Amino acid sequence: MTYRAPVDDIMFALRTAAGLPGLIETGVVSVDEETVRAVIEEAGKFGSDVLDPLNGPGDKAGSKLVNGRVETPAGWKAAYQGFVDGGWGALPCPEAHGGQGLPEVVSMAACEIWNSANLSFGLCPLLTQGAIHAIDTHGSAELKRIYLPKMVSGHWPGTMNLTEPHAGSDLGVLRSKAERQADGTYRITGTKIFITYGDHELTENIIHLVLARLPDAPPGTRGISLFLVPKYLVNADGSIGARNDVVCASLEHKLGIHASPTAVMKYGEAGGAVGYLVGEENRGLNTMFLMMNAARLAVGVQGVAIAERATQRAIAYAQDRKQGRSSRGKAGEMSPIIEHADTRRNIMTMKSMTQAARAICLVTARELDIAHHATDPAAKAAAANRAALLTPVAKAFSTDIGIEVASLGVQIHGGMGFIEETGAAQHYRDARILPIYEGTNGIQAIDLVTRKLPLEGGTTVETYIGELLRTAEEVRASNNPEFGRMGERLSDAVTALAEATRWMGTALAKNPEGALAGAQPYLRLFGLAAGGIYLARGALAVVRDGQSGGSNPRIALARFFAENHAALAGGLRDTITTGAESTFLLEPEALAG
Amino acid sequence: MTYRAPVDDIMFALRTAAGLPGLIETGVVSVDEETVRAVIEEAGKFGSDVLDPLNGPGDKAGSKLVNGRVETPAGWKAAYQGFVDGGWGALPCPEAHGGQGLPEVVSMAACEIWNSANLSFGLCPLLTQGAIHAIDTHGSAELKRIYLPKMVSGHWPGTMNLTEPHAGSDLGVLRSKAERQADGTYRITGTKIFITYGDHELTENIIHLVLARLPDAPPGTRGISLFLVPKYLVNADGSIGARNDVVCASLEHKLGIHASPTAVMKYGEAGGAVGYLVGEENRGLNTMFLMMNAARLAVGVQGVAIAERATQRAIAYAQDRKQGRSSRGKAGEMSPIIEHADTRRNIMTMKSMTQAARAICLVTARELDIAHHATDPAAKAAAANRAALLTPVAKAFSTDIGIEVASLGVQIHGGMGFIEETGAAQHYRDARILPIYEGTNGIQAIDLVTRKLPLEGGTTVETYIGELLRTAEEVRASNNPEFGRMGERLSDAVTALAEATRWMGTALAKNPEGALAGAQPYLRLFGLAAGGIYLARGALAVVRDGQSGGSNPRIALARFFAENHAALAGGLRDTITTGAESTFLLEPEALAG
Repeated sequence: MTYRAPVDDIMFALRTAAGLPGLIETGVVSVDEETVRAVIEEAGKFGSDVLDPLNGPGDKAGSKLVNGRVETPAGWKAAYQGFVDGGWGALPCPEAHGGQGLPEVVSMAACEIWNSANLSFGLCPLLTQGAIHAIDTHGSAELKRIYLPKMVSGHWPGTMNLTEPHAGSDLGVLRSKAERQADGTYRITGTKIFITYGDHELTENIIHLVLARLPDAPPGTRGISLFLVPKYLVNADGSIGARNDVVCASLEHKLGIHASPTAVMKYGEAGGAVGYLVGEENRGLNTMFLMMNAARLAVGVQGVAIAERATQRAIAYAQDRKQGRSSRGKAGEMSPIIEHADTRRNIMTMKSMTQAARAICLVTARELDIAHHATDPAAKAAAANRAALLTPVAKAFSTDIGIEVASLGVQIHGGMGFIEETGAAQHYRDARILPIYEGTNGIQAIDLVTRKLPLEGGTTVETYIGELLRTAEEVRASNNPEFGRMGERLSDAVTALAEATRWMGTALAKNPEGALAGAQPYLRLFGLAAGGIYLARGALAVVRDGQSGGSNPRIALARFFAENHAALAGGLRDTITTGAESTFLLEPEALAG
Repeated sequence: MTYRAPVDDIMFALRTAAGLPGLIETGVVSVDEETVRAVIEEAGKFGSDVLDPLNGPGDKAGSKLVNGRVETPAGWKAAYQGFVDGGWGALPCPEAHGGQGLPEVVSMAACEIWNSANLSFGLCPLLTQGAIHAIDTHGSAELKRIYLPKMVSGHWPGTMNLTEPHAGSDLGVLRSKAERQADGTYRITGTKIFITYGDHELTENIIHLVLARLPDAPPGTRGISLFLVPKYLVNADGSIGARNDVVCASLEHKLGIHASPTAVMKYGEAGGAVGYLVGEENRGLNTMFLMMNAARLAVGVQGVAIAERATQRAIAYAQDRKQGRSSRGKAGEMSPIIEHADTRRNIMTMKSMTQAARAICLVTARELDIAHHATDPAAKAAAANRAALLTPVAKAFSTDIGIEVASLGVQIHGGMGFIEETGAAQHYRDARILPIYEGTNGIQAIDLVTRKLPLEGGTTVETYIGELLRTAEEVRASNNPEFGRMGERLSDAVTALAEATRWMGTALAKNPEGALAGAQPYLRLFGLAAGGIYLARGALAVVRDGQSGGSNPRIALARFFAENHAALAGGLRDTITTGAESTFLLEPEALAG
């Protein structure tokens, strides 16, 4: 079945969770709501018409390294050209470099659509955005002039080269080298692994951003510099010049995202690749974190995207497949399985989880927009902190949901789900990378607890939880019978989050290992509470707009999520606050025994 | 890394959860503990030496249909021959037919080992056991005489042929036909799908058990008969005769278990396959349920098996892989990731979940042994009911755990987990079939709630929960500081299970759809409470044996499980008792919208 962009759901989340009308009113978003919707609808068409049909065949064919050249699946090159021609790459980019300057909230909505339609394809522009962001923020005027217009248009996609075989999560130990040259350039040598779209023939050039060390660099993360290394050198007139000393040595054989070429890249096998410093020497990691932070939110959106796609596919199957007789089925006839109670539970879970994760991601995008475009410096700073707080939640919660929903999608298909031709299994495979790349979800949880909770001495998170609590109280105070126990469950969930947060505050000072032990369930609790509240704000908006009554789907999903998923919040709090000690009862040697 | 059978863990679960010493004392198990251990150790050697080395290569090669013949991966045939020669197939079979008559508790322990070492291989004997059981219970004396000795030895493996393209979970609508012949045999025609080991060249014959309808059969499940259909007819002297009219039309291209051939089988393309009635006409489903019930427990054990294998692989990687510095790491050196808090949490979760699921499966096997071999009729009946109660929990809880643990295993490997060569991804793929086949986990949950809770007017489950509660109280009353909050959490968990069970009792009468909506979380709650109690019984046994103090791994894992996983029980109860209504707020049409 064909993917259809959930335009109404996205617009609803933008309005009720991300507060789009307010963003427009205050000038943070400079286009009107109709324009936003039109952009998302057009993106949806490109996703459905161009990207979605390539998704299954691309998975089957995979990208291949043939005689030193990376061959992407049939149709990939034309699709990428269509993407560039449609101006989609330029959507969120700075207007100074030819971009359209659309806000993050719109960019992330489009990002969801590309990745729902075709996760392997969506990765290419996703990483290009991060590279553009890094160059725009820290690159020299010349680098910007030469590279950004072509990257913004999508003609020259970008890559991120961090990982080395021995340096995955721990970048401090990377070994790639950069030697200063008399002409101000550098010569880069080293091997990088897991480089997404590290090589291909989709475009005339590829712009690699590469972390490496100068000979006199201090050890650890303070001795890492960032370099721009083009696949082809660029002549003074902007035309394509000589091949640079960088090659794709091999492609990985992966569980999923087969069409996305994951390359081992060799720099400087013939003496050194020409590189240009981005930012200052030895400050590369800061710039890279800038790229990674943007990419982390986008990966969270990929989690939403795969969940949305898996849900659509499962629903289509559940409407079509008939087995047994449901409570409203006729005697002697089989009912579509979507009428069966346990399938209905599964689909309610898939939809509500997907929508909760989407809301969290779009709210994070909203905060980034405010941080970039608000006029009040205090508002900008507060939004930047809130975006920093929410980014690990957006990344990790949404990508965990991506796997859970994709797995439920397989389950709904029964035996057919296990057959590759059905398509459900691809989502389950593709989704599995999302909690790993751009910082594993374990690292996101640690980032949340150790770096984000202490922001502004704890005020960032306190203020945030206070706002969540006010919504929970509003739901409760409304005494709306349509809301069932939503108010009670959300109140309990946010209270549990507040208690766990206080516990973390103490633990960080007195029992840091205990705080780390609880980081994963804490992030989950955060996601359930925040997601539940965003869905509830949607439900409140429906009531305010006089659209409730009957069984409004927004209210139904918000209530279901609160009563069936946010209901686990108290248990998670107990896990965090009393489960840490037992995590460490076994020393690593005993744990391995 | 090589799989090593967890002999100590299995023996510990057999002793403390399944009560092996008592079973031996009462004569239910007729061999002594040393023999049990020796058998499990020998099985472990066969698993490690023969089956495990074929697992990765078998996944890569897969089984293939070449010129109408199914080719299993290299080494498969010799391994199967070794399995037969070792007498492993005969292990649990009736002695009357050449079996060793070992009890279910030992059989399931061995089953875990085959499936940890090689899930694709383990399926072949698993299904043969079900077929043997059906023939032994309902087959004629002649069928038993001709087929059982060869099946028991493993020379002629068995298959189960239930599913048709339009009849998956709903067997009532199957269309395969059986025509009575003058000689008392039947002619079978029809197409069966998803037939595990439906065809191969491992053995000289294959014995298919096939569900089909007689021309005058009543509609629905009361018109289904069971037939034995050999691939090759068997001459009067027991030698192999003519090829029967059954062929493998194709093999499925699956997400996992690539080495296990999943066949589309065509019966009667040349006039009708010769079949022999097993049991009575139109009573085939009852016999098939007998097979399926045995197979359901074995599939639960497969969940334990894949979880165990994934855990072993993840631990080996976590000991080897160095990243960052742990709290006990030396300055300037990277630490093995097994020292990091979040990896420790993940491994504690993997180990404790695996052991909880193993205990539930072995307890179920214990009840089957008592049901078969006890002398007191009342004890037999009670055990049969308890086995019936626990079977859906063993199947569904353990296979859900299988997926969750395999997914954590990928996560611990980071980027390497997504690379197929690492091996972690295979477990994640293989595990995905387990919640689907032999009755989806949704169907298990419905079976638990609608057919098992009402057993003996609810007494079966009440008595069972009462026993769980006594253990929880014993833990609590012990006031052992090593137990942390284990007593409190388990008390709460079992109480939550009791409350949810009472709610289900009322709902089944007054709100059956609500009961169905809560069936999945109810089964999960049941598994967490029961699993937590079994681990606690192990911890109590350790204390009784004077082996506590320091940090005993049994106590540590029991406590961790209670404080970190059973802690979610209260939330699950709330989901069951107050979340059903919102599951149905959206009619199927709105749900699909």
